[in-house]
Amino acid sequence: MAKAYRICTILLRLMAMAAVIAAAVVMATSHETTTYFNLTLKADFTQTPSFKFFLIANCIAALYSLLALFASWTFIPPRWVMVFDVMIAMLLTSAMAAALAIAQIGKKGNQHAGWLPICDQVPKYCNHVMGALISGFVGLLFYTIIVFYTISTELNPLLSGNK
Amino acid sequence: MAKAYRICTILLRLMAMAAVIAAAVVMATSHETTTYFNLTLKADFTQTPSFKFFLIANCIAALYSLLALFASWTFIPPRWVMVFDVMIAMLLTSAMAAALAIAQIGKKGNQHAGWLPICDQVPKYCNHVMGALISGFVGLLFYTIIVFYTISTELNPLLSGNK
Repeated sequence: MAKAYRICTILLRLMAMAAVIAAAVVMATSHETTTYFNLTLKADFTQTPSFKFFLIANCIAALYSLLALFASWTFIPPRWVMVFDVMIAMLLTSAMAAALAIAQIGKKGNQHAGWLPICDQVPKYCNHVMGALISGFVGLLFYTIIVFYTISTELNPLLSGNK
Repeated sequence: MAKAYRICTILLRLMAMAAVIAAAVVMATSHETTTYFNLTLKADFTQTPSFKFFLIANCIAALYSLLALFASWTFIPPRWVMVFDVMIAMLLTSAMAAALAIAQIGKKGNQHAGWLPICDQVPKYCNHVMGALISGFVGLLFYTIIVFYTISTELNPLLSGNK
């Protein structure tokens, strides 16, 4: 039972790590330059604080996933891994929500505030950001599964006693 | 020890409930009508999907806080309360991040996307939203403390054994 739990956790962490690395790379490479009425427009993730936060959060999650993989064998007590897992899941949730809120304005605009959608002008950039958000969402999903799986198993004496 | 834990949890839940109720009420009452170059502008939280999500998330958290207060005495097993606590903390995190991302655009704008700040036109509305965000942040803070406090105590046999 404890061995199956360990293998399952390692697999989940590896998949979460792959997803957050992909999200960070896709967001970091999202840019587009277009000409609009003789004006050159450059869209780049660095122009939006929420996208920068998304990139930083996914990089932190990737680094932590790597550390947690080794922590499960070595020196960090399980309860600390659980605390950090929750912290990373909350960090990814906030990054995802902030980026999604801005992406929604970029796609649909907000006519009440006079904010026009920009995705018609820079569709490649928007698709790139969308790809990063999808990958980030998958990473967040894996982290949510890790958190709830860890909670349920840490409270199960059969599993936690054998680790 | 178990009694002190119970009292502490109840106090934290009551404070979290007060904060999320305040956040929901302040957001729900945020609106302003102003005249700008012979145009009547009406700013309202319903015009922004992220602010609507913020209100709904805080209402859910308020309702859950009330249920969890009774759950700690009665029928719901502690591990389920812990799972729900994490879910509510993640929900509040996402609502907070999404609302904050939009509020930042409302306050500072985004010159690259051509989105102008609106807080100069509707300062009362902006201050109201800011109040809701501060209250929401306090609620989220209490929920984060509840989650980490529950994790640390649930894994402590001295406390969890006596509940």
